[in-house]
Amino acid sequence: MLYFEDVEVGSARTSGAFELTEDAVIQFAREWDPQPFHVDEEAARASPFGGLTASACHIFSIAGKLLSEMEPMAVIAAARHELDLLRPARPGDKLTLTVGCAEKRPSRTKPDRGTVRLESELKTPDEQVTARLTSTLVLARRED
Amino acid sequence: MLYFEDVEVGSARTSGAFELTEDAVIQFAREWDPQPFHVDEEAARASPFGGLTASACHIFSIAGKLLSEMEPMAVIAAARHELDLLRPARPGDKLTLTVGCAEKRPSRTKPDRGTVRLESELKTPDEQVTARLTSTLVLARRED
Repeated sequence: MLYFEDVEVGSARTSGAFELTEDAVIQFAREWDPQPFHVDEEAARASPFGGLTASACHIFSIAGKLLSEMEPMAVIAAARHELDLLRPARPGDKLTLTVGCAEKRPSRTKPDRGTVRLESELKTPDEQVTARLTSTLVLARRED
Repeated sequence: MLYFEDVEVGSARTSGAFELTEDAVIQFAREWDPQPFHVDEEAARASPFGGLTASACHIFSIAGKLLSEMEPMAVIAAARHELDLLRPARPGDKLTLTVGCAEKRPSRTKPDRGTVRLESELKTPDEQVTARLTSTLVLARRED
């Protein structure tokens, strides 16, 4: 378990890979975000995207999954996530998450916790960045 | 279909309701974000959250679903989403999404599109705001 003290500014960890299939893109989007370019291959080809792309909800969830497969963090509260979508995620993409800590500060009023700002990149094997995610989380501190 | 011209700054739309069940919280989190306070009721009770809460990925997906059930928008590209988590979403919560347009600007270089900044709130029936979502989207303009 990673506590506030264990997360070092400037350090980075890389996750395993998530392979995005056409089926997964369509299934996820059918339930959560059924826009034509997420659920219908023919409509997607005719769309500005030129083919099926994963929903932003799916991309954020994939980042969550890859993060959860790394060493867990002692999260007390999740305050904010910023998701920049830089290029479409498409069936066949093999995505990994690199997670770094950009900033951390202990709570001024609560000695048991601190806030970290994590900056993550979801990338393909050829280092194309699909999405950038900045997450502000409150982590527990280790008990003395 | 809502095009760039159809979205008015200051206007707001409200979605139908999404009822969050314990089963849904656990099922979603098992697949995408299996932290103890999302998937294990007993561990969640002992956690700082005091009970099961929905994953941020789930909350973002619920917002996507409620948005997709309203009149669709002519999305050409999704650029950025900012998700502020203001209070935990718990089993039993009945969530609706209110979507307003805070800003819009036509593209300077591409006459077929424009960018809108949508500000959404995911709320319970007693007007408690669970999450605030700011989405920057590129919408197609109507053809003349």
